[in-house]
Amino acid sequence: MDLKPFVRDVPDFPEPGVVFKDITPLFSNPTALNSAFEGLYSLVDGHRIDKVVGMESRGFFFAPMLANKLKAGFVPVRKKGKLPYTTISESYNLEYGTDALEIHIDAIQKGDKVLIHDDVLATGGTAEAVCRLVEKLGGEIVQFNFLIVLDFLNGKDKLKGKEIVSLLNY
Amino acid sequence: MDLKPFVRDVPDFPEPGVVFKDITPLFSNPTALNSAFEGLYSLVDGHRIDKVVGMESRGFFFAPMLANKLKAGFVPVRKKGKLPYTTISESYNLEYGTDALEIHIDAIQKGDKVLIHDDVLATGGTAEAVCRLVEKLGGEIVQFNFLIVLDFLNGKDKLKGKEIVSLLNY
Repeated sequence: MDLKPFVRDVPDFPEPGVVFKDITPLFSNPTALNSAFEGLYSLVDGHRIDKVVGMESRGFFFAPMLANKLKAGFVPVRKKGKLPYTTISESYNLEYGTDALEIHIDAIQKGDKVLIHDDVLATGGTAEAVCRLVEKLGGEIVQFNFLIVLDFLNGKDKLKGKEIVSLLNY
Repeated sequence: MDLKPFVRDVPDFPEPGVVFKDITPLFSNPTALNSAFEGLYSLVDGHRIDKVVGMESRGFFFAPMLANKLKAGFVPVRKKGKLPYTTISESYNLEYGTDALEIHIDAIQKGDKVLIHDDVLATGGTAEAVCRLVEKLGGEIVQFNFLIVLDFLNGKDKLKGKEIVSLLNY
């Protein structure tokens, strides 16, 4: 199934000059939703996975589904101050200034095989920060799994040496 | 399966005096995650559903999974300014001041049968706002479906006349 017709270009969001890839039409269509999910699952390609890490907020759409189908646990990575229990934190660069991502300290056990899922790989700043969080806790990253990779932003350069898969590329 | 051992009480979050129900241990355990998902699905009890609406951010954990299993679409309701396309908005009361929730104007078609899912029903302020958003777009709310209802906060009083189901009650 061709999923690109279900991704809507929204110009000037979140700021002037940016064309945002809006994935909500894909999710509101049951056939496209199921096709995307089965496609992402098939990209995992038989790897054994203990934990699926999803990034706030759109990474939460598919990460728990993937975890459930893989018989793995789901672990959210959230923005600063959102997780209730004890966390570790990693900062990452924004266009102006920095922000931080957090994970619960007990979310991943040493040696866990980890799949990291997000909706879009853009410049790779957040994916790189999540990578550091998971590895600090002793997790072994098996795959970065994205719905969309924006190739022209070269985010893969920040994830060298890792397996990176995606369903849609621009 | 008894899921309450997988819900962790975190005192003084997000503010002093509040005991927060942390559901991340439930999600990080594959057996508990699957049991909670199947439990929430069984509570839908054969209703025909066209759209599952999930509330930012923890409502996103189960809403797309429920949608996929129900062969429905998934629709996110988000905080002000987060959705990229044209939205309608509803404000709701916080302890101090108000905030707003938004939904895309094309997310629900007139007559759609809608299931609304969130992780926790507390005071019911956000659930009531989501109810107004869905009904403004012509959707028919078939069920409010919660992982947890905090009975002592009487949130159900704000959703009178609606079917409300939950897996865990406190």
